[in-house]
Amino acid sequence: MSSLPPSLNALVTALSRLPGIGPRSAERIALHLVQAEPSEAKRLAETIRLARERVRCCDVCGALTETSPCAICSDASRDRSLLCVVERPVDVFNIEKSGVFRGLYHVLGGKISPLDGVEPEDLRIRELEDRLKPGSVREIILALSTDVEGDATSYYLAKRLARPDLKISRIAYGLPAGSGLEYADELTLSRAIEGRRELT
Amino acid sequence: MSSLPPSLNALVTALSRLPGIGPRSAERIALHLVQAEPSEAKRLAETIRLARERVRCCDVCGALTETSPCAICSDASRDRSLLCVVERPVDVFNIEKSGVFRGLYHVLGGKISPLDGVEPEDLRIRELEDRLKPGSVREIILALSTDVEGDATSYYLAKRLARPDLKISRIAYGLPAGSGLEYADELTLSRAIEGRRELT
Repeated sequence: MSSLPPSLNALVTALSRLPGIGPRSAERIALHLVQAEPSEAKRLAETIRLARERVRCCDVCGALTETSPCAICSDASRDRSLLCVVERPVDVFNIEKSGVFRGLYHVLGGKISPLDGVEPEDLRIRELEDRLKPGSVREIILALSTDVEGDATSYYLAKRLARPDLKISRIAYGLPAGSGLEYADELTLSRAIEGRRELT
Repeated sequence: MSSLPPSLNALVTALSRLPGIGPRSAERIALHLVQAEPSEAKRLAETIRLARERVRCCDVCGALTETSPCAICSDASRDRSLLCVVERPVDVFNIEKSGVFRGLYHVLGGKISPLDGVEPEDLRIRELEDRLKPGSVREIILALSTDVEGDATSYYLAKRLARPDLKISRIAYGLPAGSGLEYADELTLSRAIEGRRELT
């Protein structure tokens, strides 16, 4: 690697810091970029700069957006009585891709994890409570990760937000689609059995 | 994907055009970049711009460099009587990494391939002949790809550059290191047998 020109070396280092990019892919991409049309490299640099500059978090739900409130929050056709609580802005895009949810979102910004120093006040829970005040929300769906911290956060939220006129549900745990029993661990299996649904 | 903000969508598209980056990795990297520290995204954009701006081809050998002649061409400790001919600038880095070659390089810029419209005059062959004129080069090592076009280019060069005082060799074809016979195709095996060397 010492034979690479310094600016190319710097590019390889910068690229290998990106998620999922190992040193070899970084080198391959860097070599592609410095040998590509100058306009292509320039355009990529500009696209990165623009995206970082424009994309921000929605003041209402916390999802990534260029305008606040975001397109989902300001979409009049969505069900405002249904709120899906997720950990990260990315989760909103994943659920949107499934196309099954037509309510609004609320991004917590993480999960309660005392070991990592994340306490309830570090999350956007107060903002969530503020959104519940007008009394228009009928159901909250908790779509947090299925690990210990995610579970703990779900229970914490269910307790803190409990109100007679508010339904609080959690997305189902079970076998992933297209998978066989032999690939499921015991915890997943036990949850899948617990969460069994009657076929009628 | 339609739920992604436009500038983020543009970034995903731009990233997925890079070699080895599929749509899912592109999305992952884009989401990482817009959520990272603004300085990180800015630095990456700047590094790409700088590298593309600074890296050019060496006027002598054609390798990627920031200064011309490049560090290899201007390294007085290297053997100037030995010239390794490669197809692409990248190949120089790969051979340099092996650490086994201490001569100079010459990048052809491709291989003769009439079907793709690449004729001898499209390659840096005249420049190679110019470098041979002073008569200081003793041996040329052809390190082109081991496909039909690479072979044809090697034979063409060997014929065109032939001179009584110039040795023209080609890198060995054979089994890759750490591989077993069962993974080698017939052509590689037949070449490995042809190129056998006596153990003394």
